[in-house]
Amino acid sequence: MNQFLIADPWKIIEDRFYPNRVKASESLFSIGNGTMGQRANFEEQYSGKSFHGSYIGGVYYPDKTRVGWWKNGYPEYFAKVLNSAFWIGIDVKVNGQELDLAKLKILNFYRELDMRHGTLTRIFTVEMKDKTEVMVKSVRFVSLARTELGAVQYSVTPVNSDATVEFASYIEGDVRNEDANYNEKFWELVGQTTESVTMRTKKTGFQVCWMMANEVNAPDARIEKRGREERVEEIITARAADKQPLVLTKYVGIVSSLNHQPADLVTAAARVVKEAREAGFDALLEEQRQSWLEKWKSCDIEIGGDEAAQQGIRYCIFQLLQTYTGKDSRLNVGPKGFTGEKYGGGTYWDTEAYCLPFYMAAVGAEVGRQLLIYRYNQLDKAIENAEKLGFTGGAALYPMVTMNGEESHNEWEITFEEIHRNGAIAFAIFNYIRYTDDRKYLAEYGLEVLIAIARFWAQRVNWSEEKRKYVILGVTGPNEYENNVNNNWYTNYIAVWCLKYAAFAVDYVRQHDPGRYEAIVAKTLFDAPFEVEHWYDIIGKMYFPKDVRRGIFLQQDGYLDKEQTLVRDLSPEDRPLNRKWSWDRILRSDFIKQADVLQGLYFFEPDFDLETIRRNFRFYESRTVHESSLSPCVHAILAAEIGDMDKAYEMYLRTSRLDLDDYNREIEEGLHITSMAGSWMSIVEGYGGMRVRENKLSFSPKLPEEWEYYSFKIKFRGRVVKVTVQGTETVIDIEEGEPLEILLDGRPEQVIRERTFAAPPLPDEA
Amino acid sequence: MNQFLIADPWKIIEDRFYPNRVKASESLFSIGNGTMGQRANFEEQYSGKSFHGSYIGGVYYPDKTRVGWWKNGYPEYFAKVLNSAFWIGIDVKVNGQELDLAKLKILNFYRELDMRHGTLTRIFTVEMKDKTEVMVKSVRFVSLARTELGAVQYSVTPVNSDATVEFASYIEGDVRNEDANYNEKFWELVGQTTESVTMRTKKTGFQVCWMMANEVNAPDARIEKRGREERVEEIITARAADKQPLVLTKYVGIVSSLNHQPADLVTAAARVVKEAREAGFDALLEEQRQSWLEKWKSCDIEIGGDEAAQQGIRYCIFQLLQTYTGKDSRLNVGPKGFTGEKYGGGTYWDTEAYCLPFYMAAVGAEVGRQLLIYRYNQLDKAIENAEKLGFTGGAALYPMVTMNGEESHNEWEITFEEIHRNGAIAFAIFNYIRYTDDRKYLAEYGLEVLIAIARFWAQRVNWSEEKRKYVILGVTGPNEYENNVNNNWYTNYIAVWCLKYAAFAVDYVRQHDPGRYEAIVAKTLFDAPFEVEHWYDIIGKMYFPKDVRRGIFLQQDGYLDKEQTLVRDLSPEDRPLNRKWSWDRILRSDFIKQADVLQGLYFFEPDFDLETIRRNFRFYESRTVHESSLSPCVHAILAAEIGDMDKAYEMYLRTSRLDLDDYNREIEEGLHITSMAGSWMSIVEGYGGMRVRENKLSFSPKLPEEWEYYSFKIKFRGRVVKVTVQGTETVIDIEEGEPLEILLDGRPEQVIRERTFAAPPLPDEA
Repeated sequence: MNQFLIADPWKIIEDRFYPNRVKASESLFSIGNGTMGQRANFEEQYSGKSFHGSYIGGVYYPDKTRVGWWKNGYPEYFAKVLNSAFWIGIDVKVNGQELDLAKLKILNFYRELDMRHGTLTRIFTVEMKDKTEVMVKSVRFVSLARTELGAVQYSVTPVNSDATVEFASYIEGDVRNEDANYNEKFWELVGQTTESVTMRTKKTGFQVCWMMANEVNAPDARIEKRGREERVEEIITARAADKQPLVLTKYVGIVSSLNHQPADLVTAAARVVKEAREAGFDALLEEQRQSWLEKWKSCDIEIGGDEAAQQGIRYCIFQLLQTYTGKDSRLNVGPKGFTGEKYGGGTYWDTEAYCLPFYMAAVGAEVGRQLLIYRYNQLDKAIENAEKLGFTGGAALYPMVTMNGEESHNEWEITFEEIHRNGAIAFAIFNYIRYTDDRKYLAEYGLEVLIAIARFWAQRVNWSEEKRKYVILGVTGPNEYENNVNNNWYTNYIAVWCLKYAAFAVDYVRQHDPGRYEAIVAKTLFDAPFEVEHWYDIIGKMYFPKDVRRGIFLQQDGYLDKEQTLVRDLSPEDRPLNRKWSWDRILRSDFIKQADVLQGLYFFEPDFDLETIRRNFRFYESRTVHESSLSPCVHAILAAEIGDMDKAYEMYLRTSRLDLDDYNREIEEGLHITSMAGSWMSIVEGYGGMRVRENKLSFSPKLPEEWEYYSFKIKFRGRVVKVTVQGTETVIDIEEGEPLEILLDGRPEQVIRERTFAAPPLPDEA
Repeated sequence: MNQFLIADPWKIIEDRFYPNRVKASESLFSIGNGTMGQRANFEEQYSGKSFHGSYIGGVYYPDKTRVGWWKNGYPEYFAKVLNSAFWIGIDVKVNGQELDLAKLKILNFYRELDMRHGTLTRIFTVEMKDKTEVMVKSVRFVSLARTELGAVQYSVTPVNSDATVEFASYIEGDVRNEDANYNEKFWELVGQTTESVTMRTKKTGFQVCWMMANEVNAPDARIEKRGREERVEEIITARAADKQPLVLTKYVGIVSSLNHQPADLVTAAARVVKEAREAGFDALLEEQRQSWLEKWKSCDIEIGGDEAAQQGIRYCIFQLLQTYTGKDSRLNVGPKGFTGEKYGGGTYWDTEAYCLPFYMAAVGAEVGRQLLIYRYNQLDKAIENAEKLGFTGGAALYPMVTMNGEESHNEWEITFEEIHRNGAIAFAIFNYIRYTDDRKYLAEYGLEVLIAIARFWAQRVNWSEEKRKYVILGVTGPNEYENNVNNNWYTNYIAVWCLKYAAFAVDYVRQHDPGRYEAIVAKTLFDAPFEVEHWYDIIGKMYFPKDVRRGIFLQQDGYLDKEQTLVRDLSPEDRPLNRKWSWDRILRSDFIKQADVLQGLYFFEPDFDLETIRRNFRFYESRTVHESSLSPCVHAILAAEIGDMDKAYEMYLRTSRLDLDDYNREIEEGLHITSMAGSWMSIVEGYGGMRVRENKLSFSPKLPEEWEYYSFKIKFRGRVVKVTVQGTETVIDIEEGEPLEILLDGRPEQVIRERTFAAPPLPDEA
């Protein structure tokens, strides 16, 4: 447990100022509303180390690629979400002296992120150079209800004398990315008024207008407007009486050309600000609180008897909710959300593999659907991307990292070879329909994507005369501690699965929506009998590496030629490998960065018996170093599945407080948003054993002995289902919606409202 | 045959000015003396596209690495030979008008590189704007005898009237590398006089002083000295009578802190210039001619009946001779010599694999020895390099690219994995001793290197429980169109060979020089019985991939899983693959960039019977695209060996005029110096069949039917041996030195002076 944070079920709290952790806390206390986000930078001037970050979803710039040795096929640009105008800024002077926490004596300091209500509060008292003591309180949020509004209330209270206080509230448009390959500035000025700045991204031409209105509770305050190019500023000077707060309220409208005509931006921003002022800060705050309470109603997880775990899981859910709301199918979930710039804010296969299950269940089917449509809309680019790599005939390779559908990444072993991502995108369609029963999605959007992906695999395999089988050469699996391997089991498996599912989908749409089917055939020039026959040939003759003696699937050809060392025999000085070992040494070791074969067993669990899962789990888990934050959740789920509750708990702990406890000392750069979904999965799919089986919601709940109880809520086909596991009992409650037949440990059970079941015995553990 | 060049046995000639080929010709006509080199830039101002390049061997700068995705173990810097002060500059005005070939009417133009005498001459006539016609002649060279001297004689002759001519002879120190990762300037000024500039490289602190003296054949010339920071300039204005040449002679001393104390540089440069002036240009030119004639005496190759081939091979020899003389063991052979900046001018395994045989035979044993000592001197750095990658106990991994012994390269699949280079460095020791019989080298220098390399392999292999053999995982072989493969046959073979040879060397030195042996044991903490026993264990149990059915060695594990396509079935639109295909497609194809298994058969030919070589040659040659200039020579030699003279000739042609004919349209960047050694090998080792067998010089000459005859000269153990092959006869002539017993087609023969043998029948071709 992080020694810097106070445990609390609903809040993240710092009760002291830690000068060495400012950047880390700026990440931790970030706020967002799915449209934009803001790191927890101080409003006032801070001369210590800080990383200002303000991000607007969907506003990106193609930064020129940096590469040592160019490879044919690399993209020229890496599209990045941009650090944008700093709109929270309120510099403060007290009796002419600058308020700067890096330079003053701090008498107390308290910061709180209220996850239940979506607000960030900071309260501190400092002694100025002239011994005046002032208490400062700031409350801020980015509005969930009004996605273009940010608001700050900033009060200064002299506590041992009267004082003259000067606020300089500003919007600074001259912002650069911390993460820029050639130190370029990505923004240029479009225009400004005394209250607003409008900037445009170079090349991509996105326009954003920031407009502010400042109110202060001092009728006689002196107000002066200043600024310079790319900056507007309002100086408000007033006298604050002893123990009387001087309160500045700052409303900022942030509107972009994603949602408005460029010519209308200033008007649109003015409207946001005007409506906010009319409502007033207190009403807006209450609106924010209600919006967040509403969100929590269908997705809270309670953990009894473990305050740190309770705080950890709510933190994960909170961050996921504020990163992506599903209102805009142009947006997606960047690995760091709105909390940093690393990885460029682009979309990875994390979305399909980890985030989709969370958003479907926690927020709703329509949110999952938006994530799928994001990829549907980028299908043409995925086809172009495949063409660049030599594929033809409408084959699609979705990019490893993307903003607009074009590939951004430039490591050949990843960009060109980590092609299993294509499988995850197909699997997400299956997974979405399985969960939501939205079968029409196949005809509407799914089939086109599935055909294009199947075409890719059909070309990417090759026939090995030697093996008399189809093989897939030169790939990187989910385990990126192997590069350019042959016959990665997971990749081969998901490739065949894609072909099967595409063939099924072709058949399904042909039968259920023949008109749409014909339209798709015409659009995609689909040569149904010929192509599907070829798919079945591959399905029947694919090669899968395995070790018969051990009864396991082999991660790839030649894996057993490696020296078989176990993680438990690694010296602590060698950890983490990715910092201590040279890359070649990592590559030729048997150590696994993240679930690879096990990822396949997780996705395709119904295809395998429990003993097979157990044997593979034992073999691979002992070799996995989990140096990706996306790894432990899959292990946690499978461990729970095979009844290894100790391992499940160990794996759960690896991610649940990864950022809160800053295990890897790297959260300064931003949080691990996508892997937070893994923590949710570990509880709901791991301990709760939630699946959809036989078109029914299914559970096989297990309670870790470290917890008194836990409960989770999910949305499922028009219902809110709450599952509580405590002692020997499982309570299933349909909080909203119709009765439901579920499977509990495989037995069909009817649940009308609330029903209590005796806990099942734990399965044997070998 | 290049349409731009005139065929000539001893000269490279352009008889027209080709404005679009200026940069290419600047490379082609480069001159050097082993210490420094100069691209064939015009002395006078040229406003068209040009690439000024002047290089001094051993003067380098560690340019900050550029990389997209950092991998643990990458070097921070890439050490580069630097483009340095432009010392040939002589701007010219005629009647006040600038002489600039890009802007004037050119009446004639002739340029000649005299390979026999080491001089570059240019003669042209232009019409000035005022219709004055002037003929210009420039002769220049960098002195072989006086390695710190460059000289230019530049004459202007008005041919249709008198004219006023102004020469501005200068040294420009403000020079940047074309190839700089972050556009930095690498030089800073130390000081300057009216005749000299002294510059220092940043970080590395090498100092170089350039000093000039200008003489003109006009006693009444007006002379003015100018300049600015980092530049000295002398303006010489004189009247030239009609058809009377005005001649400027420019002597430049170029001295560096590699050979002088920094404080003495100006004095040293002055001495060079003074001595040159005392000798005078004509005498210096004659000295240069004699120096080059002397060089050619022991290494010329004559080809009868093929002028293009004759010119091509002499060009290769000439470039190799002027790139490296072996006088300084701190220097080596960069892939582009002194003709460009690409690849940083560093040392690659090209030196050991391709250049060493040439220099030993063409220039002398002592030159080969210098190349070995270069690596000996860098042994400590090679041990450090291995330590960075996790190796211990005095194991050495020589860098892929280096200037000072430290690794410069930064592609993991090359830097960390193309470890076969270590084998080439050990093989060079063996090859040198085999050729020269300098057995003492083992005790003096060789053994230490061999132990360190053997230690590397002993750690780099691992035991495969699966195969019950030692394996080598995660390597890149000479064929860089495969990355991170397992059990590359060539790498496994040379690893075992290194262990054997190191074990032999241990034994040899222990027996022949016990004192030195004990010293080496003490210095290297060599645990003889234990380490050697381990080596033998690996030697006995190494795994070698093979295909029993085809009777071939397999390039690596899984090679036969690839789609087996032949080069002859590739569409021309797909060539060259490295420009037309994405990298992953190249990697998973069966196409081979350069000799890989065949490289091993070439190095270790005595280990294999002719049928094995033939089978492997047929298999791999048909899959090799030769997209490395280092590839065809090995194929040429093996083709000759198996009697496939058509293929041998085809392969010979691939490199012999690679640069002269600018096959790949890339010589603007510089020449392929190291691969020129391959052309020499193709004739001497290919057609001539030169080997050392049973400690005797051995030949098995074959005459390609395209040639009337050929002859080559080599130095061998104190002799100059000339071999002439014509019609059905081979003539062996000991031009210098003692009689020699040779092997001719395997038969021992005594040669006292000159002896003629009947040509052997060609071996059967399957």
